[in-house]
Amino acid sequence: MTALTTNIEQPTMDDYPTRKEQTPALLYRKDPAVCGDAASGPIDAETLASYDAKGYLQVESLITRDELEGYRAELARLSSDDELKKDERVVVERASDEVRSVFEVHRISPVFAELVRDPRLVGRACQILGSDVYIHQSRVNYKPGFSGTDFFWHSDFETWHAEDGMPRMRAVSISVALTDNYEHNGSLMIMPGSHRTFVSCVGETPDEHYRESLKKQKVGTPDQNSLSILAEQHGIDVLTGPAGGALMFDANCMHGSNGNITPFPRSNVFIVYNSVENTCETPFAASEPRPHFLGARDFTPVN
Amino acid sequence: MTALTTNIEQPTMDDYPTRKEQTPALLYRKDPAVCGDAASGPIDAETLASYDAKGYLQVESLITRDELEGYRAELARLSSDDELKKDERVVVERASDEVRSVFEVHRISPVFAELVRDPRLVGRACQILGSDVYIHQSRVNYKPGFSGTDFFWHSDFETWHAEDGMPRMRAVSISVALTDNYEHNGSLMIMPGSHRTFVSCVGETPDEHYRESLKKQKVGTPDQNSLSILAEQHGIDVLTGPAGGALMFDANCMHGSNGNITPFPRSNVFIVYNSVENTCETPFAASEPRPHFLGARDFTPVN
Repeated sequence: MTALTTNIEQPTMDDYPTRKEQTPALLYRKDPAVCGDAASGPIDAETLASYDAKGYLQVESLITRDELEGYRAELARLSSDDELKKDERVVVERASDEVRSVFEVHRISPVFAELVRDPRLVGRACQILGSDVYIHQSRVNYKPGFSGTDFFWHSDFETWHAEDGMPRMRAVSISVALTDNYEHNGSLMIMPGSHRTFVSCVGETPDEHYRESLKKQKVGTPDQNSLSILAEQHGIDVLTGPAGGALMFDANCMHGSNGNITPFPRSNVFIVYNSVENTCETPFAASEPRPHFLGARDFTPVN
Repeated sequence: MTALTTNIEQPTMDDYPTRKEQTPALLYRKDPAVCGDAASGPIDAETLASYDAKGYLQVESLITRDELEGYRAELARLSSDDELKKDERVVVERASDEVRSVFEVHRISPVFAELVRDPRLVGRACQILGSDVYIHQSRVNYKPGFSGTDFFWHSDFETWHAEDGMPRMRAVSISVALTDNYEHNGSLMIMPGSHRTFVSCVGETPDEHYRESLKKQKVGTPDQNSLSILAEQHGIDVLTGPAGGALMFDANCMHGSNGNITPFPRSNVFIVYNSVENTCETPFAASEPRPHFLGARDFTPVN
């Protein structure tokens, strides 16, 4: 009987097929964007409804000025640690030898370990996802002035589904701004409402794709026609705000950022919370899951 | 007597030295930004005062919807003219074979010839410059969506002075938008008030520098320290506005633009009016003046 049941359930339908067909497709989302309600956390009903509609919300001041200084100092300490540059979790720009990202930063830095379990973050994540949460990924990013490069449009969920085996759209990212985000210094852009559409991408995931995709993603990149349709339909929001503020956005938001020729750098702490009811399985379109520092395989809830 | 007078006047002081020293410098502007008054043209007193302070002004709707369609059609015609691609005045992107700019467009296209002598443009230019004007340069620009590249910070006057021999800051550029300029699609950025400071640049102008500088400028590029000072002091304005609107800005405005990953292209008509009392002489920091399609040597006033 067990074997029969298993057979009936296998193969499970993939609601979000990607990197399997020769042509791209726009598919309807099959998961709610908000699972909790206003009573279950710090986000009020209006903001929750707006998150549901747009796929993101902003908190103008999430951390105090003193905390901000502490996180900046910790980022500076990490960036100047030459030992750390040898760590595979650290992305260094070859030309300048400057640190661009530190992944799994909550395991590398005690300061950021404290931030990722802060109730101001975790409470909001649990409220949106309607369950306990664990950390799928964490990192700090540093985008310098004068030469910051762009990041092309993508849905994080597309990669997490294809390469990490995340089954459903039930994860939320939070970006805590360590510098001011202006409309001119390469701030994140989101197509509001795009989280309701899954753009199925073409191409097959190469082995160890993450080594390339951290620099410039090719496979898992949405096609221009789909992007034009989404941009016409939803427009584009440039997400500005002061240092110390935070942005939370759905795993399937279509987002990207332009380059930055201004003198103003951008840095942030970026944490992905996933529902403990949505833990990662076998990748849906890759031979192996990515390393744990990009897509965690430890699903211990954050408390 | 004539010889003596000439000797006394020679060598003339260069108020805006550039590409001559080993270190950059910030110099005070020695020319007024506005020479006319509200009575002498279509720009009202308040707008003139704002132009004087910021170095730019915007006209939300300069041309009609029908005119806009006509100019767009003419741009499309020019872009698809394969004969024209062989012309040295046309900049074609090698990778895609697409036209990016057509210089001296008022001599190439009868449609744009009419636009550059339109009283709505010429009247405003004469008013700002306080004299008759001639066309120092004209072009149409096409910046595609998805892959539009950035244009680093620069003062146009620095190049016109060094390479074209424009003596004083008494020219104004007008950009007529043929597409909507959003905050997210690589719109022009200006540091408001920066036109009052001349950034003296380092490096010597190579022969035929314009062949390289049209793609990626190196000599005549302001240093990062000067740019940081100007940006801290003045901030950065992103100049958005609908198609059919226009932007006028002073020759010495520090300006640039980020790249454009959005699906929305940007195109405009760009005309530089110079005062007939400020005609170009021997270049101040180059062995030869640039070709006439980049810096006109015909100073006939526009009527």
